[in-house]
Amino acid sequence: MQTPTAAMLVIGDEILSGRTRDSNMHHLAGALTVHGIRLAEARVVADDPAQIKSAVQALSAGYDHVFTSGGIGPTHDDITADAVAAAMGAAIDIRDDARAVLQAHYDRQGQELNTARLRMARIPEGASLIDNPISAAPGFTIGNVHVMAGVPVIFEAMVASIMPTLTGGPPMLSQSLRIVRGEGDVAAPLGQLAAEHPEVSIGSYPFHRDGVHGTNIVVRSQDGAAVDAVMGALARLFPDAG
Amino acid sequence: MQTPTAAMLVIGDEILSGRTRDSNMHHLAGALTVHGIRLAEARVVADDPAQIKSAVQALSAGYDHVFTSGGIGPTHDDITADAVAAAMGAAIDIRDDARAVLQAHYDRQGQELNTARLRMARIPEGASLIDNPISAAPGFTIGNVHVMAGVPVIFEAMVASIMPTLTGGPPMLSQSLRIVRGEGDVAAPLGQLAAEHPEVSIGSYPFHRDGVHGTNIVVRSQDGAAVDAVMGALARLFPDAG
Repeated sequence: MQTPTAAMLVIGDEILSGRTRDSNMHHLAGALTVHGIRLAEARVVADDPAQIKSAVQALSAGYDHVFTSGGIGPTHDDITADAVAAAMGAAIDIRDDARAVLQAHYDRQGQELNTARLRMARIPEGASLIDNPISAAPGFTIGNVHVMAGVPVIFEAMVASIMPTLTGGPPMLSQSLRIVRGEGDVAAPLGQLAAEHPEVSIGSYPFHRDGVHGTNIVVRSQDGAAVDAVMGALARLFPDAG
Repeated sequence: MQTPTAAMLVIGDEILSGRTRDSNMHHLAGALTVHGIRLAEARVVADDPAQIKSAVQALSAGYDHVFTSGGIGPTHDDITADAVAAAMGAAIDIRDDARAVLQAHYDRQGQELNTARLRMARIPEGASLIDNPISAAPGFTIGNVHVMAGVPVIFEAMVASIMPTLTGGPPMLSQSLRIVRGEGDVAAPLGQLAAEHPEVSIGSYPFHRDGVHGTNIVVRSQDGAAVDAVMGALARLFPDAG
């Protein structure tokens, strides 16, 4: 089967201002790779309804899955649910199933489900809820768009909740070789090897560490035998590598 | 004056596969904020010429500046320079000024400027070079697109090289208040304050640390007096904050 594709949309002024460093993209990238879904693009946009709407529409049309993070809390700057509903042409209001989840959570905590917290029960019509085992307020899936929280521990729990529901392709396999020679020295034989083996993807990543500078070669394919064959050819090309 | 806008384009399969965690976006975000340029969007795309070209065209048309990172080394997977040239409708070939920079560097190092390394002298017609004090191979600016290396230490040096050449607006000022109450408890008064003060941006960021859960409120504006005034109002609303 064809490997499904995905895009991520990170939503939040705090990422673009440099106040906060996003970690959700890196987490999702790793989880999707293991699951056999290819993350093909990621975007970061501000807390701006028009920007969120147009990014969701572009990514939803372009890829099999879209994953968003951020902007689904109780405060005035949490506008993701409404912007995604608008993007997908769905009505949105407080939904009884989401309200029941929140009511049970705040009852257990002895806290009030006030008007602000009820905002987190605004879920587009037709969406299914994504479980939040940390703080109850659910994410949701509408069409091919999965809307999740920005707080990393909650985002990661939501990814764990939905991943088993998604159909992945054969996982991407990779092996790497560390060569203590600069990229400029390995580029010619490496380029020839890559041209001879279009069935694998060969990446080249320079490193400079503790005064040593060299190149990490990464060979990737869904076909383990193809990766093995190219790794063998690399070992013959660079017999001094380790 | 209007605050100039910027977008970033991170280029590299290794970011999307989860192998490498990007740090350049966070660095650029901070540098632009200090310089009075607003980072309005960021994208991550694969080492794919069509994807790079269409992202560069969209971002170049949409924002005052575009900053790219990654894909300008000597190996077969370094395709950014050619893809950016195609996006901007410029011819590209080995340029004498870039070749001279590389020749001087490899002469000093006693290494050969071979065919692979000469790829790094491929610069679009009409572009100006961006200095690389670490490993010589230059970045370049064509139109409003600034093309830089992916290796963080080199990316950061290139950002430092070009930032003084860009005209920023008044820098964005921010102050923050830490409140040991959940977002759901502060949301209503905070939303009202935000509605009363459209001249500032008020962000709300939940935290959970060492068993304490609370909310960081961040007030941002180019007008320092407006930030001060809203911080005063916040202190009156939440007298127990610290």
